[in-house]
Amino acid sequence: MKHAKIIGISGGSGAGKTTIVRKISEIVSDFVFIPQDNYYKSSDEIPHRATPSRSPTAIPSGLPPPEPISNANISEFNFDRPDAFDNELLRKHLRALKDFEAIDMPQYDFVHNRRLDQTVRVEPKKLVLFDGIMIFCHSTIRELIDLKLFVDTPDDIRFIRRLRRDIEERGRTVDSVIRQYLEVVRPGHYEFVEPTKLYADLIIPEGGFNETAIQVLASFIRGVAEEG
Amino acid sequence: MKHAKIIGISGGSGAGKTTIVRKISEIVSDFVFIPQDNYYKSSDEIPHRATPSRSPTAIPSGLPPPEPISNANISEFNFDRPDAFDNELLRKHLRALKDFEAIDMPQYDFVHNRRLDQTVRVEPKKLVLFDGIMIFCHSTIRELIDLKLFVDTPDDIRFIRRLRRDIEERGRTVDSVIRQYLEVVRPGHYEFVEPTKLYADLIIPEGGFNETAIQVLASFIRGVAEEG
Repeated sequence: MKHAKIIGISGGSGAGKTTIVRKISEIVSDFVFIPQDNYYKSSDEIPHRATPSRSPTAIPSGLPPPEPISNANISEFNFDRPDAFDNELLRKHLRALKDFEAIDMPQYDFVHNRRLDQTVRVEPKKLVLFDGIMIFCHSTIRELIDLKLFVDTPDDIRFIRRLRRDIEERGRTVDSVIRQYLEVVRPGHYEFVEPTKLYADLIIPEGGFNETAIQVLASFIRGVAEEG
Repeated sequence: MKHAKIIGISGGSGAGKTTIVRKISEIVSDFVFIPQDNYYKSSDEIPHRATPSRSPTAIPSGLPPPEPISNANISEFNFDRPDAFDNELLRKHLRALKDFEAIDMPQYDFVHNRRLDQTVRVEPKKLVLFDGIMIFCHSTIRELIDLKLFVDTPDDIRFIRRLRRDIEERGRTVDSVIRQYLEVVRPGHYEFVEPTKLYADLIIPEGGFNETAIQVLASFIRGVAEEG
């Protein structure tokens, strides 16, 4: 019976997780990518003052309210908590992928903060890359991850990356980025993300710019992708 | 022309560097081991209030003064500084080993805090394991290291390991261990060791008990030992 191995890439907002995923994708092409962000609960399922702080570029759609994220309301929400994710569905899906079964991955509408009706069929592969800020928080999910990587980047550098990205790609104002960071992102980071560094098998400093780290990971990852 | 690769293993006192070296030695047998401790300067070459805080079991020999380390004078000395090492000799030796040349490694008398007259001939091998608390401090040495690992263990756990070791193996009293730790080891750690974590390619949390980390390193290290 075929099995898959799961490599989990965690770290705070702006740490460089995506860069690590991209670098790994240059080493092996045949993998499944599961972003934890796709498993956010719809905002009506979680207490108010909560929205994903890390939403991708917001392109307004024709959908009815809840109201879209804007510079004005960005801090009204806080999805920077482990229970903002549908952890039970996530656990089931990771379990299925490990057992080499296909899943229907949810899609998330970051503009209106709710799960879309459409899902994406994900066929099993020998390697699963699983990325997110809170993937090591729940033991039931953590124990499914075969290699736990934590990308560790100084807090000021992480904030600067986030500031640049939110201004350039998401049209935010400096003030709204700072407010959201101080009110929800930073507290969530210290309460939930930073403590899970303890569970990492390896910590990658300054994620993605570190070619030697990637080189070390490469031989291991190639092995996983080949043996299955 | 043959070349060697150097893997540097750093981290604070009690972090678990030796355990990592031992685990690597279970993966590849053919390597050269260079402990930074062997390159301590004799105590008459460095300012007073300085002695290696991490000396191995002290068996008094018949040598004349300086006086041996004891519970009474353990804090009078401080070798927990980068300039307590003969960094120029260390650099030359690492350079030679990289170029596949033999070296005569110094030996250190930790009882009387001075270099012995005898050296040990070290023949070149494809893999060099280089371990010590301050191996990433000097750029001239750091740049010779091909893979920089930092073993990161919580400070209280490091102190507890050190306390146990110094009491059981070195006949120290609890009070003398605490005094030395607070007066020289801890300040030296925060001033010189901890900041070099920045230079690490990979950080290994809780060194040596982490089997997955060793597994990831294994494929890389095997590659180095085979290709040369």
